[in-house]
Amino acid sequence: MATAHHAVLGTGTVGRTIAARLVELGHDVRLGTRDPAATRSRDGWVDVPGVELVTFAEATAGADLVVHAGNGATALELLAAAGDLSGRVLVDISNPLDFSEGFPPTLSVKDTDSLGEQIQRAFPDSFVVKTLNTLTAELMVHPERLPDVTSVFVSGDDVPAKQRVTALLAELGHRDVIDLGGIETSRGVEMWMPLWLRLMGSLGTAEFNLKVVRGP
Amino acid sequence: MATAHHAVLGTGTVGRTIAARLVELGHDVRLGTRDPAATRSRDGWVDVPGVELVTFAEATAGADLVVHAGNGATALELLAAAGDLSGRVLVDISNPLDFSEGFPPTLSVKDTDSLGEQIQRAFPDSFVVKTLNTLTAELMVHPERLPDVTSVFVSGDDVPAKQRVTALLAELGHRDVIDLGGIETSRGVEMWMPLWLRLMGSLGTAEFNLKVVRGP
Repeated sequence: MATAHHAVLGTGTVGRTIAARLVELGHDVRLGTRDPAATRSRDGWVDVPGVELVTFAEATAGADLVVHAGNGATALELLAAAGDLSGRVLVDISNPLDFSEGFPPTLSVKDTDSLGEQIQRAFPDSFVVKTLNTLTAELMVHPERLPDVTSVFVSGDDVPAKQRVTALLAELGHRDVIDLGGIETSRGVEMWMPLWLRLMGSLGTAEFNLKVVRGP
Repeated sequence: MATAHHAVLGTGTVGRTIAARLVELGHDVRLGTRDPAATRSRDGWVDVPGVELVTFAEATAGADLVVHAGNGATALELLAAAGDLSGRVLVDISNPLDFSEGFPPTLSVKDTDSLGEQIQRAFPDSFVVKTLNTLTAELMVHPERLPDVTSVFVSGDDVPAKQRVTALLAELGHRDVIDLGGIETSRGVEMWMPLWLRLMGSLGTAEFNLKVVRGP
């Protein structure tokens, strides 16, 4: 039985990178944007090969798995425009970054709440899984670029949804996927971003990831 | 020329572990507590071999390097009772954990400020270096227990102080010490704690650390 298509929402670097890799891996992917004509008219826009660019709602119609790859600051607004998300595995890979005070950004939600939880509360009939917000886009889909196995995480309340996403992460090449627990644990991975940002500043590159090294 | 002694402030697991290891490595160490008689009368108290237990101010008198290994929630209060800290390298390895709402704790300061910065502001004539708050006590002093080299960090405004601390970290066995930059970068390492706590919950152990794996 053929699986339904995957929707990737957001046409920035993360969305385009994820969509392109999923297609390479043989998935049927639709890339969602607010206004396809406006997106296509962007300076330097190039279509992602093999991926249809459609509205958010057209992307999610009939999709079984929806990836939110948009800006964390507008996640709830974007998803509200994305049609019926009930029953979908809703993968959130964004960070609630607030650039209003410049760089490095702060987090608009943290510590006692998280964007992952906000999305789950706003879409109670979807199965939200937070993942991949902890590393740069290219390494999300090509972790083998790094010279060692590194770790990624899944957070979510629905175990089958996390298993589904973990299988997809394995397809992307991730060899150490740590299930942190319920969607509440999004607080942990979202609060990694302040250290990630300072590591990027110190190392002068985004080409790094953490490996969780366990004791014997 | 003999170096001056090191003061370790705080007689919990972290302070005792650090003090014991520094003595093993040949350092002259004084362990500071609020009231030595009260500490000695604690149920189960055992002196750290080779380490004199004295008041905070007695510990810091003549010390060139002072380690704050106390509770983050009372760090400023503790250090205010620790005598003259001017000119000292002041190593802060605590986390501003707030357990008032139970477990996991939240952070009492974060994102737009940090405990490291608060300490530097309160003691402007000291050279504050934030480090080692990112892993469990036993791994602070025995990182070789893990099957791979892992990373620790230094944050601070004074470069010679960070070099001094980096050398001490090397003595403890740390092979990957990343200088994140000024004391502002304490925000990054302190905000790692929420992910650390959830990893501990998921892995069922505190015997882990992160390795920052860089691209080629």
